[in-house]
Amino acid sequence: MKILVLNSGSSSIKFKLFEKDEALASGLVEKIGEQSSKIELKDLKSGQKYQKELAIKDHEQGIELVNELFAQSGILHDLNELDGCGHRIVHGGPNLTKHCLVDDEILKEIDRVAHIAPLHNPAHLIGIKTMIKAAPKVPNVTVFDTAFHQSMPDYAYMYALPYEFYEKHQVRKYGFHGTSHSYVSKQAAHILGKDINEFNAISAHLGNGASVCAVENGKCVDTSMGFTPLEGLVMGTRCGDIDPAVLPFLAKELNLNPSDLDTIMNKKSGVYGICGFNDFRDIEAQIEQNNEKARLALDMFCYRLSKYIGSYFAILPRVDALIFTAGIGENDNIVRAKVCQRLAHLGFDIDLDKNAQLRNGEISQKDSKIKILIVPTEEELEIAKITTELIVNK
Amino acid sequence: MKILVLNSGSSSIKFKLFEKDEALASGLVEKIGEQSSKIELKDLKSGQKYQKELAIKDHEQGIELVNELFAQSGILHDLNELDGCGHRIVHGGPNLTKHCLVDDEILKEIDRVAHIAPLHNPAHLIGIKTMIKAAPKVPNVTVFDTAFHQSMPDYAYMYALPYEFYEKHQVRKYGFHGTSHSYVSKQAAHILGKDINEFNAISAHLGNGASVCAVENGKCVDTSMGFTPLEGLVMGTRCGDIDPAVLPFLAKELNLNPSDLDTIMNKKSGVYGICGFNDFRDIEAQIEQNNEKARLALDMFCYRLSKYIGSYFAILPRVDALIFTAGIGENDNIVRAKVCQRLAHLGFDIDLDKNAQLRNGEISQKDSKIKILIVPTEEELEIAKITTELIVNK
Repeated sequence: MKILVLNSGSSSIKFKLFEKDEALASGLVEKIGEQSSKIELKDLKSGQKYQKELAIKDHEQGIELVNELFAQSGILHDLNELDGCGHRIVHGGPNLTKHCLVDDEILKEIDRVAHIAPLHNPAHLIGIKTMIKAAPKVPNVTVFDTAFHQSMPDYAYMYALPYEFYEKHQVRKYGFHGTSHSYVSKQAAHILGKDINEFNAISAHLGNGASVCAVENGKCVDTSMGFTPLEGLVMGTRCGDIDPAVLPFLAKELNLNPSDLDTIMNKKSGVYGICGFNDFRDIEAQIEQNNEKARLALDMFCYRLSKYIGSYFAILPRVDALIFTAGIGENDNIVRAKVCQRLAHLGFDIDLDKNAQLRNGEISQKDSKIKILIVPTEEELEIAKITTELIVNK
Repeated sequence: MKILVLNSGSSSIKFKLFEKDEALASGLVEKIGEQSSKIELKDLKSGQKYQKELAIKDHEQGIELVNELFAQSGILHDLNELDGCGHRIVHGGPNLTKHCLVDDEILKEIDRVAHIAPLHNPAHLIGIKTMIKAAPKVPNVTVFDTAFHQSMPDYAYMYALPYEFYEKHQVRKYGFHGTSHSYVSKQAAHILGKDINEFNAISAHLGNGASVCAVENGKCVDTSMGFTPLEGLVMGTRCGDIDPAVLPFLAKELNLNPSDLDTIMNKKSGVYGICGFNDFRDIEAQIEQNNEKARLALDMFCYRLSKYIGSYFAILPRVDALIFTAGIGENDNIVRAKVCQRLAHLGFDIDLDKNAQLRNGEISQKDSKIKILIVPTEEELEIAKITTELIVNK
């Protein structure tokens, strides 16, 4: 089974080719529609890279070039040889609650909820349609970032806004990073020899975007991201939770329109907004040099995360494991140590030596009530697995 | 010592007269500036009421009438006999960190931060100035809802927005209900025979406005309300926490301006926005009749509160007591039971019989790790005490 995993953005296509859970090649088409677009393909076995720089006018031409480079590399002669293509879709809206094989109804529904994910869904649709055209016989599967969170109870996903905003405008908490939270919680259960259906965990996906998820019996019961990926934790450039009344105040005080506010909250805030850096290695280097704003940014990040973990610890009847994943979660031992030390009295006993050395596996002390794990996330692999399963069982 | 406590709103003056911590009289001037304004004074010893209905054109006339009714009742012959007047001030901003005797500088500072509390501070200022004019020799004291929260660490009160919003526009978490949280935590320490300086508690002030506060060694270290009283819990008509990105979305989708959004979030949301009721007795009666939206509203209220208590349980090294206060906190045993039962595994063991019977005092089981208390709040009494203390020590 050869499965291509595709993440189609507004001006880029990220892709990875799998054969039986093994990644054969990965690549990126970027700056589509610009003069300086380029495409790169990497053979993950040999390490060889194939590149082209040329003006790529649209996604269709992008996919043609992917096809060409695959043929040139000898990894795949034609996209039509694929057994399936799995598409990462950010937003499934309220109705697309499960990953699924693509048909016309699915495409219509992704389009119907595009207004609540305007930066992502239209680009994903183009990606799917382009693949259908380029390789008509290859089945396509949509894998939604939101699907894992569809098991949340209504009292966790509803906002206390007028009910009609939910009914008429689909305003509710959806949650994101679902594929990652789902993958790492299954991995963690496996590592600890537990049945995922009886496994409770708190999963912290900490990248430039960051979210926490409460998992009960293998299912999501709450998560920190919301209607959009803005809510929740302090992130690289996103503010996460604020008093919502700050927005009307700023709008009036500084004469800002809704788009300005969106940009400020998504691109100019987070640890970057506080200290001017959003790479945690830079922030920690700055702290070494007594940069007070960097200290504040890291403290805010860790404190907010500790509070979220605490709130999920409270609403879950029992927690078996705390899982760290994604860039910061896997690599930043300072963040992990600060958070776990603050929560030690709840039974999160981190082993500081293991925490400093490992980037994968168990980092709690032997007798820690709650196991603490680093589990590297593999979102593309998870998408490939889901795609395979849906195609085999169709 | 006779102390008048005054809460001056934009079209109302609420007042209560104390002598040595005992309330002698209370009253209200309402609909100031309208044709149908009225004033009421109640003698709290005899229960007798004194009322007048007439057009009251401004606060100055309102205070004159307060003076007249006091004289008529025989409780106080003239406002000039007062030993002091304590004013409830919602917002002290970043600089007024302690309650204080009024001087010109204080008045200027309250005015300077009026833009961040436009509904309250201008009305408070009018109240103070009117009292100065009506009773020039009586010292005035300002008691800030925000003062108790000024001990929060920076990583708890800062938002992850661009730092300049904090520097130039004072955007940060302030917290409110401070006088209430301070009063009930001192009371709880007293009831439990603990030194307030070594007492850790989580205080839940649940009225039509609602907030939770984490108290460590008698000091506030975090609270759920923020830049304004909108953030945090689901409230009667306020939404509390939402994904802030919902606002630009709604603004664009429904063509709403900042004032519309403010009104929706503050007056048309909360449990009222979900089910159409904001009195919890109505909501609970509706649930008896299988009203699904009422069930959802109550579940959301209790779930959000449980999560906040959980997050404060996590960041406090130890919790001695959970305190319920204000209308819902004192009277709604269903809310208290739902929240404590969800948190039982953390050591909050509620005694359901006591909870059903009591409206004051300890309601936890004998061996509960964390004591659970109902402590009726007395904000005016606390303001009177603070006022007395500042006047005696000046």
